[in-house]
Amino acid sequence: MEEEGHMKGEEAFRRTRVPPWIKQITLRAVITSFVLSLVFNFIVCKLNFTTGIIPSLNVAAGLLGFAVIKAYTTLLNNCGLLREPFTRQENTVIQTFVVSSSGIAFSSGMGSYLLGMSPYIAAQVDGGNTPINRKSLSLGWMFGFLFVVSFVGLFSIVPLRKMMILKYKLTYPSGTATALLVNSLHTPKGAKLAKKQVALLFKSFCGSFAFAFFQWFFTGGEDCGISTFPTFGLQAYSKKFYFDFSSTYVGVGMICPYLINVSLLLGAIISWGILWPWIEHKKGIWYSAEIPASSLSSVQGYRVFTAIAMMLGDGLYHCVIMLIRVAYSLITEYLEKKESFDQNPDNVDQNPSGDLDTQRRTEYFLKDQIPSWVAFTGYVVLAVISIITVSHIFPQLKWYHVLITYLFAPILAFCNAYGCGLTDWSLASNYGKVAIIIFSSWVGIENGGIIAGLASCGVMMSIVSTASDLMQDFKTGYLTLSSPRSMFVSQVLGTATGCLVSPLMFWFFHKAYTLGDPQGSYPAPYGEVYRGMALLGAKGFSSLPKHCLQLAIVFFFLAVFINIVRDLLVRYETKYRIYRFVPNAMALAIPFYLGGYFAIDMCIGSLILFLWEKRNKSKANDYVPALASGLICGDSLWSVPAAILSLAGASPPICMKFLSRAVNKKVDTFLSGGP
Amino acid sequence: MEEEGHMKGEEAFRRTRVPPWIKQITLRAVITSFVLSLVFNFIVCKLNFTTGIIPSLNVAAGLLGFAVIKAYTTLLNNCGLLREPFTRQENTVIQTFVVSSSGIAFSSGMGSYLLGMSPYIAAQVDGGNTPINRKSLSLGWMFGFLFVVSFVGLFSIVPLRKMMILKYKLTYPSGTATALLVNSLHTPKGAKLAKKQVALLFKSFCGSFAFAFFQWFFTGGEDCGISTFPTFGLQAYSKKFYFDFSSTYVGVGMICPYLINVSLLLGAIISWGILWPWIEHKKGIWYSAEIPASSLSSVQGYRVFTAIAMMLGDGLYHCVIMLIRVAYSLITEYLEKKESFDQNPDNVDQNPSGDLDTQRRTEYFLKDQIPSWVAFTGYVVLAVISIITVSHIFPQLKWYHVLITYLFAPILAFCNAYGCGLTDWSLASNYGKVAIIIFSSWVGIENGGIIAGLASCGVMMSIVSTASDLMQDFKTGYLTLSSPRSMFVSQVLGTATGCLVSPLMFWFFHKAYTLGDPQGSYPAPYGEVYRGMALLGAKGFSSLPKHCLQLAIVFFFLAVFINIVRDLLVRYETKYRIYRFVPNAMALAIPFYLGGYFAIDMCIGSLILFLWEKRNKSKANDYVPALASGLICGDSLWSVPAAILSLAGASPPICMKFLSRAVNKKVDTFLSGGP
Repeated sequence: MEEEGHMKGEEAFRRTRVPPWIKQITLRAVITSFVLSLVFNFIVCKLNFTTGIIPSLNVAAGLLGFAVIKAYTTLLNNCGLLREPFTRQENTVIQTFVVSSSGIAFSSGMGSYLLGMSPYIAAQVDGGNTPINRKSLSLGWMFGFLFVVSFVGLFSIVPLRKMMILKYKLTYPSGTATALLVNSLHTPKGAKLAKKQVALLFKSFCGSFAFAFFQWFFTGGEDCGISTFPTFGLQAYSKKFYFDFSSTYVGVGMICPYLINVSLLLGAIISWGILWPWIEHKKGIWYSAEIPASSLSSVQGYRVFTAIAMMLGDGLYHCVIMLIRVAYSLITEYLEKKESFDQNPDNVDQNPSGDLDTQRRTEYFLKDQIPSWVAFTGYVVLAVISIITVSHIFPQLKWYHVLITYLFAPILAFCNAYGCGLTDWSLASNYGKVAIIIFSSWVGIENGGIIAGLASCGVMMSIVSTASDLMQDFKTGYLTLSSPRSMFVSQVLGTATGCLVSPLMFWFFHKAYTLGDPQGSYPAPYGEVYRGMALLGAKGFSSLPKHCLQLAIVFFFLAVFINIVRDLLVRYETKYRIYRFVPNAMALAIPFYLGGYFAIDMCIGSLILFLWEKRNKSKANDYVPALASGLICGDSLWSVPAAILSLAGASPPICMKFLSRAVNKKVDTFLSGGP
Repeated sequence: MEEEGHMKGEEAFRRTRVPPWIKQITLRAVITSFVLSLVFNFIVCKLNFTTGIIPSLNVAAGLLGFAVIKAYTTLLNNCGLLREPFTRQENTVIQTFVVSSSGIAFSSGMGSYLLGMSPYIAAQVDGGNTPINRKSLSLGWMFGFLFVVSFVGLFSIVPLRKMMILKYKLTYPSGTATALLVNSLHTPKGAKLAKKQVALLFKSFCGSFAFAFFQWFFTGGEDCGISTFPTFGLQAYSKKFYFDFSSTYVGVGMICPYLINVSLLLGAIISWGILWPWIEHKKGIWYSAEIPASSLSSVQGYRVFTAIAMMLGDGLYHCVIMLIRVAYSLITEYLEKKESFDQNPDNVDQNPSGDLDTQRRTEYFLKDQIPSWVAFTGYVVLAVISIITVSHIFPQLKWYHVLITYLFAPILAFCNAYGCGLTDWSLASNYGKVAIIIFSSWVGIENGGIIAGLASCGVMMSIVSTASDLMQDFKTGYLTLSSPRSMFVSQVLGTATGCLVSPLMFWFFHKAYTLGDPQGSYPAPYGEVYRGMALLGAKGFSSLPKHCLQLAIVFFFLAVFINIVRDLLVRYETKYRIYRFVPNAMALAIPFYLGGYFAIDMCIGSLILFLWEKRNKSKANDYVPALASGLICGDSLWSVPAAILSLAGASPPICMKFLSRAVNKKVDTFLSGGP
C-alpha cells in the first residue's frame, strides 16, 4: 500500500470505485457541511465586521471536512458499523458546500452594501442621510433578498462548464489546489500527512481559542485589554500602529501572499503615518474644527474617499483589463481552433493528450449531464422572480433597473469566471462597485440613489461571485472525479444554507455589539466605504470636503498607474522580476480607513512563514495552512461565547490599561484619594 | 580528526600538549575572566536582591569563557597572528576565576548578612533597632572586611586536596560536570556542538535582553508594567500568584531540578494560599490592626519567622547529618585502607585502576605542588590579620569571638568540602546561620548582638564557602589536567576580583534602587530574614508576635521531619523511588516571604524543559543549559542600562496598569473630567 502514495494522479486511485453522483452527497456529508458552514459563516462574518479582508478558506474547509468525516468513519469502523467508506468525492462535496455557503456570507454584503443602508452608518456619512436613502436592516427582507439574488448566478454559468473546463482548460489555481489537497488526503501517504496536519490544526485551534479566552478577562472597560497594547508606544498607538495580538490576522497573514501584507503595511504608513497627520494639520483651514473627527466632512472624509478612489481605480483597471484579456483569449482560441480544425478536421473535441488522468477525468465529467434548457429556464424564471421581488423590497430600484442588470450580468459572470480561471482573482466586488456608481447616479439622491446603488451592487455581486465560485468547484470536481451534478447540487445546498445562516449571523453580531463604529471592535469598514461610493455616485463630487477631490483623483490614477507599471514589468522585465515588489493597489487602500494594526498582525504572520520557509520550505508548505486555519478558527470562534457573554451582560473582571506617565501620576493620586 | 570526537576521556587528547602551569594563566584568560566576572557578579547581585535563589552558573561561565576566547583566537588565527592555541587548561582557569569571583558575590552577604545590618532593614524589623545594632553600609569597611575574611578559606583547605581528590575520590558532581563540559568543548565533535550551543546562548541572550528592554517602556509608575500582569486574576495577584514574565527566573527554573521548582510552588500555595490568609483573618486578635502589614510585629513577622524556622530546621538537620556522614565515611575509609594495607602493603598510594585517564590525571595533579607550610603560614597570618581587622570594624564582635570562629572554621570547612564532594550541596549558608544564632545570643542584644551575629556569619560563611569552591575547582582541574597551582592562583585572583567588584555592584544597585523594600522590585528577602535570625538569637523568642513561636516550632520540626522521611525513603524504598516526590524543605520556605510569582516563573522553565525532554531528551540536555544561561544573562544584564537610566532620572513613558472593572469605571470618569 505504501508505494501507492508515490504514484501520480489517478494512478493512485486506479482500484478505487467512484460512487454514482447521488451517493456522493451522503447524509453524513450534508450534516458535516452544514455544521462547518455555520462555523465558516461565523468566521467570515467576523472578518467582514473587523477588516473586510477574507482569506481563502478552501484549504481549511477541505481539511476540517476530512477531519470530521475521518473521525466519524474511523469510529464507526472500530465499532464494525461502517457501511460506506469515505470517498474523495464526498470530501469534495463537503468542501464545495462549505465554501459556497461561506461565499454567501461575503457576497451577501452584511459588512458592505447591506450594512451601508442602515441608519447607523447613514448617520456617520453626513450627505444623503434622508429617509429614502436609509433602510433599517431586518431579518425578513434580508432572507428574501438573498434567496432571490443568490441562485441566479449558478444557472447563468452552468451551460458553459464544458467549454471552460474541457475546452479552454482554465487552471483555476484555488480549485486545482483544493482538488490536489483532497486527492492527496485520500492516498495512504497523504492520509498520514493529513493526520499530522489535522493534529497541528487542532493544537493551534485550541491555543488560539484559549488565548482569546484569556484576553477576554482583561477587557473590562472601553479601550482595555491586551489588544490595546501600544507595542510601539502611545504615539504610534494613536496613529493605529500597534500589534493587537489577534491570532486571526496572524493566521490570515500566513495565508495571504507576502506582497499583500507588505502592501497593507505600506498603505498604513503612507496614510496614517504621513497623509492623515498632514491633513489634520489643516484642521480649521480645510475643514471645520468643530465637526467630530468621525464625520465624513472631517478627516474621516479624506480617509474614506481616498480609499474609495484607489479601490475604484484598481477595480476599474482590472475590469477593463479582464474584458480585454477574455476577448483576446477567446479570439486566439478561436483562431487556433480553426487552424487545428483545418489540419485535422476529425479531432475537434477529443483531447490531444490522451493520458489516463485526462481520460478518466473527462469521462466522469461528461457522465452526468445538466441539460442546458434546465439552466436557461432556471435563469429566466429566477430572474423574473428576482426582478419583481427586488424592486418590491427596494422601491428606489425600479424593475427596469434590475432587468438591465440581469441582461448584462451573464456576460460579466462569464468574464469573471473566465478571469478567475486564468488568474484566481475574483473581481465580483469590483463589478459591484461599478454597479453602485452607475445606478446611484442614474436614480439620483432625491429618489433614493444611495439605496438603489447599494441594492444593485448586491444583485450584481451575487451573480458574478456565485458564478465564478461554481466554475471553481467544477474544476475541483473534474480533478477529483466528482460528478458535475453532485457539485451543482452541493453548491445549491450551500448557497441556500448561506442565505439562511448569514443574516442570522449578522443578527447575532448586531444584537451583541455595535457594528460599524469606527472606534469599536467591529468597525466594519466597508459599510461606510460602500455608502460613500453610493453617495459619490448619487450626489457627485459636491459631497467631498475641500481638496478631497484632488487627492481622490491622485489616488485613483495612482492605483491605475501602479497596475500598469506592474503589468508592464511582468511582461517586459523578466530578469530580476521587479514586478514582485510592486505593491498591490487594493491592499494599499484598505488601511487608509482602518489603520495599520491588522497589517502588523498580518506581517507577523508573514514573518513566521518566512522564517519557517527559510528553515524548512517543504515542511512549512505542508503545515502553515493548517497552523493558520487553526489560528483563524480558534480566535474567531471564541467570538461565539464572547458574544453570548456580552448578550448575557457578563463583563470581564479586569481592565488592562495603558496610560502615559503623566496621566498615570494623576490617576494614582486620584485613586489614593489625594488632592 | 573526526573520529577523535568519539574517543573517551584522555584518549582524545593524547596528542595535545599540556602547557606548564604559569602558561595556563595567560593574559587573555585573565582579561576575559575579569570581564566575565563583572557580568556574573552583576547577575548574582541581581538575583540576590530579587529572590536570593542563585542557580549554578558554572556551565554558563564555561560556555561564555569558551565563546569569548574562541572568538578571539579564531579572529587572530584568521589574521595569522595566533601564537598560542586555546587550551582546555586555559578554559578551566577562566571558569575557576569567574566562578570564584561570583561566589564572593554570594558569600559576601550583600543581599543577606551585610544588608541585614543596614538601618533601612533595621527599621523594618522592630526589635533591636538601636544604634549599636545597626551599621551603615559604606564601601570602605566592606572592602576591608571582605578582603580579610575571603582568603582564609583557601588556605585552610589546600593541604587536604590530595586526600580528597586522589584518596577519597570524591565526585564533586558540579566540578565533574564542568570538567566534562570543558573537555568536550575542546574535542572536534564537542567544538561543533559548542558552536551551536553558543549560537543558541547568544540568541536567547539577545531575545531576553530585548524583551527586558521592551518591558521597561511600560513601567512608568509604581505597580506598572508587564511584570504586574495578573495572569490568574487580581485576587491571585494580591496573593502574589502571577506570572511576572521574568526570563531570568524562567531560565533559573530550567537549570534547577524539577523538585526544587515544584517545592517552591507548593511552599507558595501553602503559605500565601492558605496560611497567611488565615493569619490575616486574626488581625486585631493576634496582632494589632494598626501596625502596617510590612512590620515584623504584623503578618510579616509570621512570614519571616516561620521561614527562618524552616530554614534553621533544614540547615541544622543537614549540618548534623553531614557531620555524621563525614565521620562515618572517614572511619569506613580508614578501616578499608587498613584492610587493604594488610593485604597489599606495597600499594598504598598507587591507584588500583591504573588506566590511562587516571594515570595522566594523577601525574599532572601531583606535578605542581603547593607546600603545606605555605598553606599553614598563610592561614595563621591571614587569621591574625582578620581577627584584628574584623574586631576593629565591628566593635560588637570581640577578638576572642573571631578567634574561636577561626579555630572551628577549618573543621567545618573540611566537612563542607567533603560533603559537597559527596552530595554537591554546599552548606555554607547553613553554617553561617548557626553562627548567627550562637554569636548573637552570646553577645546579647544590648551589646550589639545582632551586628555581632551577622558579622560572625560573614566570617564563617566566607571560609566554609570558598573552601568547598576551591576543592570543587581542584576536581575540575584534576579532570582537565590543569595544574593545582594554576587553579589556586586563579582562585585567588577570582576571589580578589570578587572582593573588589561585589561591593561596587552593591553600591550601584543601592544608589539606583531601594534595596530590601518588600513591595519594590528588589525585596532582597534574605536581608530581613538574616536580621530576623540574629534578633531571635540576641533577644530570644520574646521578639515574636503572638502564636508565632508555636507556628515556628511546627515548621522547624516539619523541616526536620521532611528530611528524615526523605532520607529514610532513599534508603529503604527503592522500588517506586517515592523520595523523588518529597519536597525540599528549604525550597518550601523561600516563598513564605516572597510569594509565588518567581516559583511560577521557575515552574514554567521546568515545563519547557519537560516538554523538550519529552520530545528529544538528548537535544534538550545539550541545549537547555545554553538557553537558560542566555535567558538569565540577557534579562539580568538589561538591569545595567536600566539602573543607569534610573540614576540619570529617565523614566519610562508608559504605564501598563491593571484595574478591576469597578475601579476602571471610576478612573474613566475621572479622566474624562466627569463628577
